[in-house]
Parts: sequence; structure tokens; C-alpha cells
Amino acid sequence: MSFADELRATVGAAHMLEGGDLAAYELDWRKRFRGRALAVVRPATTAEVAAVVRVCVAHAAPIVTQGGNTGLVGASVPDASGKQVLLNLTRMNQVRGIDAANLTMTVDAGCVLQHVQDTAAAQGLLFPLSLAAEGSCTIGGNLATNAGGTQVLRYGNARELCLGLEVVTAAGEIWSGLTGLRKDNTGYDLRHLFIGSEGTLGVITGATLKLSPQPAASSTALAVLATLDDAVALLQLAQARLGAGLTGFEVMGRYALGLVRQHFPQLAQPLPPAPWTVLLEQSDSESAAHAHALFEALLETALERGLITDAAIAASLEQSKAMWHLRESIPMAQSIEGQNIKHDIALPVSGINEFVASTDAALLRAFPGVRLVNFGHLGDGNLHYNVQAPEGEDADAYLQRFEHPVNTLVYDAVGRFGGSISAEHGIGALKRDELALRKSPVALGLMRAIKRALDPQGLMNPGRML
Amino acid sequence: MSFADELRATVGAAHMLEGGDLAAYELDWRKRFRGRALAVVRPATTAEVAAVVRVCVAHAAPIVTQGGNTGLVGASVPDASGKQVLLNLTRMNQVRGIDAANLTMTVDAGCVLQHVQDTAAAQGLLFPLSLAAEGSCTIGGNLATNAGGTQVLRYGNARELCLGLEVVTAAGEIWSGLTGLRKDNTGYDLRHLFIGSEGTLGVITGATLKLSPQPAASSTALAVLATLDDAVALLQLAQARLGAGLTGFEVMGRYALGLVRQHFPQLAQPLPPAPWTVLLEQSDSESAAHAHALFEALLETALERGLITDAAIAASLEQSKAMWHLRESIPMAQSIEGQNIKHDIALPVSGINEFVASTDAALLRAFPGVRLVNFGHLGDGNLHYNVQAPEGEDADAYLQRFEHPVNTLVYDAVGRFGGSISAEHGIGALKRDELALRKSPVALGLMRAIKRALDPQGLMNPGRML
Repeated sequence: MSFADELRATVGAAHMLEGGDLAAYELDWRKRFRGRALAVVRPATTAEVAAVVRVCVAHAAPIVTQGGNTGLVGASVPDASGKQVLLNLTRMNQVRGIDAANLTMTVDAGCVLQHVQDTAAAQGLLFPLSLAAEGSCTIGGNLATNAGGTQVLRYGNARELCLGLEVVTAAGEIWSGLTGLRKDNTGYDLRHLFIGSEGTLGVITGATLKLSPQPAASSTALAVLATLDDAVALLQLAQARLGAGLTGFEVMGRYALGLVRQHFPQLAQPLPPAPWTVLLEQSDSESAAHAHALFEALLETALERGLITDAAIAASLEQSKAMWHLRESIPMAQSIEGQNIKHDIALPVSGINEFVASTDAALLRAFPGVRLVNFGHLGDGNLHYNVQAPEGEDADAYLQRFEHPVNTLVYDAVGRFGGSISAEHGIGALKRDELALRKSPVALGLMRAIKRALDPQGLMNPGRML
Repeated sequence: MSFADELRATVGAAHMLEGGDLAAYELDWRKRFRGRALAVVRPATTAEVAAVVRVCVAHAAPIVTQGGNTGLVGASVPDASGKQVLLNLTRMNQVRGIDAANLTMTVDAGCVLQHVQDTAAAQGLLFPLSLAAEGSCTIGGNLATNAGGTQVLRYGNARELCLGLEVVTAAGEIWSGLTGLRKDNTGYDLRHLFIGSEGTLGVITGATLKLSPQPAASSTALAVLATLDDAVALLQLAQARLGAGLTGFEVMGRYALGLVRQHFPQLAQPLPPAPWTVLLEQSDSESAAHAHALFEALLETALERGLITDAAIAASLEQSKAMWHLRESIPMAQSIEGQNIKHDIALPVSGINEFVASTDAALLRAFPGVRLVNFGHLGDGNLHYNVQAPEGEDADAYLQRFEHPVNTLVYDAVGRFGGSISAEHGIGALKRDELALRKSPVALGLMRAIKRALDPQGLMNPGRML
């Protein structure tokens, strides 16, 4: 049998695609990486995944694993060689079981995030991971990239929401680690090693996820502020007053919300333009009235202390959604304005104000006229610090010419402030060279040793991350 | 220079101990493992640790790292060969810095846990890791063993409280990963690999820890119940009502509290003996009155539903402490009663009732007269499920004779229920053989590959875990 025939035999002819229009599999979400796959294989079970890996190993064929293909760093599409097998897991989309008393759910890796959320909600439970792509991204991709999103402040990243994993190793063996245990100190934490490894060590095929009780009520508020230091002080105040009830703390710069105002004029903005707008979300285990009273007291104190200049509390679920919708419309408003140079960075919360002030100034000096789209998850120190071409410039051409020097300026500053060049999007193909330059040689040495140990043939998503 | 002279040169003659009474370093806390060190070296800085490791590597000498030497599985004392170098880190006991706005603290690995807690408290902040040995265990040991304790339900294990690490590798290089970032997706999570690795991959020399705001008030209650299923139902109710405010949920069996009554008659027990007693702890970001009202409503509902038969809410901080003191006196009461066969196990919370009922019965059939000391962190599914010799038997002789068959019965049952044979104490020397027997061959293969990759000479705490 030829290699292709062997692959076909493992998954069935209907689920092995060669030739024809494979753009949905070969082109990444941001349309920056277009590759060509040797074949697209779509297994339905963990055993089929293991069989595919073993066939690929026998033929020394590299494997790129793909879920919803919504990643932002080019880690889930094949390269241009035409030699990589694209392993798409979206047929593995079953919820394997829910244990409500244990607050866990076990799922196939190809389950769409929103399906996981909905399944938990139908039991009166919460799976809190939430991000823009939730309607199409898969939980396997969320775990392979350690996705973040808007609820990290309270519930953690994807890795904190996963108690157990099932993984097909680079040798095509199955590690069945689907435990629903809160504590398990029996050896190295393989789960945390595979989470965030972007398909370079093995294939995540299933997961046991941690659920929470649904809060009795949630409430949203907006506040406007003069400086990011005030935003950090408001964050501290909110953390002290609301404790773990504070589930979201998003910041939006004036220019970012201005783009939303310009491109989505139908979206009401309840507060006047200001240097910074913060969105606070609270989850309450008692009642909506209790949540509202806590928010009122918090914002009153913040006004008295001069931390904020104005605020609005959502009076209904619709108003809450409308506030979130403003925040979530920023990426789309940016896109309409034209391609931009994106930075998904993290900083110590205490250094954010100084970082932004000094880096804004340096960018405007070095690249006159650039427009700074700044928003993100301030509670986690995570900014989407994006640079838009000067007004009137061709955005694509500007990106082509200035992406590298802009990145260098921004990432150098991130390094000086002890930050991270990838907070929640990962490394993939996009930031691989930057990682090699900027990560400490000792850390890179440890990572490469682990890669060689678990994937000695180098077949798992080569060219990504390392 | 001789090997000993080289070691002396790295740390200074005063901090290199040979001969004399080294029992404090060579004997473990439970007095079950007594080894003999080639030498005890006590470096004061990370650079000295790295130098010691390089000297040991040059002489192919194995290294056992030790913090407060309070571990329960024999991972922090040398073996009997007289060839292992004991690296004690308690001279590295400085708090390197606190960043209150970032809610982080960076410390040397040799800092005593209570010192870390006190330093946070002095800033109005909370470092929530809390366990019986906190007055002498070190944070490095807590991280190397991924310690648990009484606050895991709300704040997680030691690994969830650590944002960054500094590690001396098996090659004597320094990985400076002391980030205070909440999000950092730049490659494999080395931090989580070293946490819980029990000194077998490198030496943790420093950590950046995650702090929380101090709650405005905390409150404690006791409740008595007929069955563990009722306890699980009470846990679910408390999680729904209190959300993240529920910080502790401990369970104590009748016989365990009976031992406390017998050996510490001066400790008042506010509720009558019952099959099970639960201790609930709540942290409240509002006020003591608010916490009390929530507890009253919760326990009233639990009484109405027949989940509990009686309850008592602490009316003061002293009463809260007295309730915790009952719980914390169980291990000592056990010790007074005589050596016992300890099992630190975790189970899915939903399976605990059935596990205990069936395993209790099986133990009593197989080992007539044994007394079952059962207590633990029910909220995490973590039981200290201990077996005491029958009344009148010599406890040491019983342990000698029956430890292995009792372990086999218990661990077989743990396996059938999808549990873990080490929830929070680790593997060390004590459970190494059990791990090799009971962990899946694929997982063991991955762990061994990682060990070989990061410690190719096998010098880091050999004979422990793997």
C-alpha cells in the first residue's frame, strides 16, 4: 500500500482529502499563512489518531494538528512543502460525560468551545473559558495553545481549567490521563507540559475539564479614567472589595473605542470618550441586587478617590451584553480600518502605565503618525497593543515594510519591563524567530531537550515554536 | 583539591558539614528513612548552588536537595550509600521583593512558609498556602512537592500559587524564570515541570508567588452528618451559595475525632460524636456579619434538607481557631495512639462515599479489628485514609507486617475508582515502587524520557520518584 492508501485505510476514504480546494485547512484565520498539505485526514476516534500517527512515523511524514483553525500565530496550518499531513480533529466532537457532583466534564478534543459551555450550562454549571472565537475554536486547540480570554482573572487560563488529558504521543501511543482529580502528585505533570505545546510534543485527543457552579447573577459596569495608573488602582480596589467576585477587568484606549464609534455607529457608548475606559464584570453567588449594590459602593468610592471620572452600571442583561459588545467589536473595527501590527503582550500589572507611556512615545518618535490601538485584559496584565498605519497610508504596504522594526521596538520594551511577547496567542510560526532571540538560552536549551526526548524524529508540528 | 575541598570552597568551610551528628539532615520527619550523606552543603546564594551542582557533576556525585525536611515520603534525605551530597537550602531565606500592585512576592527557596505568609500579611495581602508544617517547611520544598493543605479548594495547590521560578539545572546552569506574569505563552511550561518534580530534574532556588487581597472577614462552622454522600451534597450546596467564598471544606470521621477526644480531652468539641463531622471555612470580602448571615442561611437549608443533623458557627476568631485546632490535632492524636499505615489519596468527589464504604468493609474483612482513621480535604477529593493497628496490638510490629498488604488493598481500590495514590505528599522513596506498578506504562515512559533529557547523568535525587 502507498502512504496515501495507508492513511485512507486508517480513517476511511471519505475522511482523507487530497487535492481539490483545501483552503479551509491550509489557510490560517488571519490569512497570513497559506500552506499545502500532503493530505488532510479527519479521524473520528483516539484509536484512529494513534493509527494515523503510527503510519506517519513509519513514513517519516510531519504532522500538523488542527482544531477549529482559529489560531493567530500560524501553528495550525501546513507549511508550503506539500509534505505535511494535516490532522484535523473536528470529527472528534463528542462530550464523553459529565460528573456534576465532581464538577467535571470529559470531552473529545474536537468539541467546539461554545458546545462545551452550553453543555455545562444545561446542567446549571459553568465552563468559564470565553473568547472571541468560541463559536468555532475547539477545546483541543484551546488547550494546545493555553488560551486566555476574558475570564482569566477569576478562573485562570485554559490550563487551570483542565484536570486531565488524553494524548497520542509522537510514537503513536495513547496516554490516558483523563482524571477528574483536584490533586494528583504522582510524578511529573505531563498535563501541563502538553498544554501550551502547540502540537509539537503530541496530539491532545481528549480532556477532563473543571466546571464551576453558575453564579446567581452577574453584573457589568463601565468607568472612564484619565490614566492607566488609575486603572491599576481601580483594579486593586475592586479586588479588595469584590474578592473572587471580580471576573473581568478589561481596558480600552481612546483610539480603540473611537474606531468602534466610527465603524459601528449603531453601538451606543454610554460614557463620553476618555483616555481610558474600563469594563468591570462581577459574578455574584447571591443575587442581582447584591451585585448591583456592591458595584455602586465600589464605583462611588472610586469617584470619591478621583480614580474615575464617570461610570455606568448595566441595568439589565441586555445592557451588560451591549457593554461587552463594545469591547468585543474592537478587533473587527481594527480590521475594517486595515491590517495592523499586533502585539499580544503581558506585563507585571504594576508596570503597565509606565510601559505604555514610554512605548507609545518611542513608537511615535520612530514611526511618526502611527495610531495606537490599545486594549486588553488589564486584570491579567495582558494588552493587545496594536499599531495601525498612519492615516492615509496603505495599511498592507505599511505592515510589509514596518512590521519587523515596530516589533523590535515593542518587544525590546517588553523585555525591559519583564514582560512576555506572547501572553495568550502562543508562538507558532509567527513568533518562532523572536522566541529564539528573546527567550533565555537556558530555557531554550531545556525546551529543546524536552522536544528531542518526546519527539525524537521531529515530526510533530515542525517549524512551530522551536 | 579533593572533592570535599572543592565543595568547601564553593560555600565556605563553615557551611560544609562532614561527620558529627547530622541527624537533622539525614533523618526524615516520620523517622522512617535514615541515610548517610557524603557531606551537607549549605549554600547562601543561587550562584553557590550552581557552583555546588557543577562540582558534583564533575565528580559524578548524586545530589539530594532539602528544605525544611518535613516531607512525608522520604524524598529529602540521603540514602544509606554515604555517596550523596545533601544540599540544604535553608540559608537562602530572603524575601527578594514584594510588588503589591502586581500581587506578587519573590522569595528565596529556603524561606519558611510561615515567614512568607507573615510577610504578605504585613502588607495587607494573603499568601494562602497553609499546612501543618508551615512553621518549618520551606517554599522550595512546597513547590518541589506541589504541596496542598487546607486552602486548595479556593486557591489551588502550590503550583497554582507560583507564577515564576528560578532553577539550577542538572548541568549547573541557572534558569531565571522569575516572572510575575499572569499570562505567558512562550513555549513549554518549564515552571509546571519543575514544580512537583521532587528535586529529580533540578534545584528550585527562588520563586515568584501569587498573592491575594486579604479577605475582610473569615468564618468557620462545624456540622455533623450521617453519610459521606450527605457531605458531598453539602459541599455542592455550599459551592453554589458561597461561590469562591468557600475556602475550606474538611471532613473528619468519628474514630478520628474520637482519638482527639481521648488524647486531647481539654479541646472542647462543640458538637456530639457523629459518623462524620465537616469543617467549613468561608472568606468574605464584605464583613463578618455578612459572612455569618451567609453561613446561617446555608446551614439552615442544609438542616431543612436533612443533609446535616446539627451545626455550630464560630462566634469569634478564637472559636474559629478552636475548630481548626480540632481538625489539626488529628495527626498528633494518631501518633500518640501509635504508628499507622498512611494513605494520602485523591478520588473524584462523586465517588468518595462508595469508595470509603466498600474499602472500609474490605479492610475489616481482610484485617479484622483494624481502626480506620479517616479525615481530609473533602472539597478536593483528598482523604488521609489511615489504618491503625487493632486495639491491643503492637503498632510498630503491625505496621511492619501488614503495611504492604494493606497498601495493596487500598491502592487497588483507589485504582478502580479512578483515584490517585498520592494526592499531596508526593512519591519520594516511599511510593516509588507503587508508582512503577500503578502508573500507566505510557506515562512512565514519558516521565523517564524527560528525566533522561534534563538529567542525563541521573544525579538529581536518584532513587526518588522514578
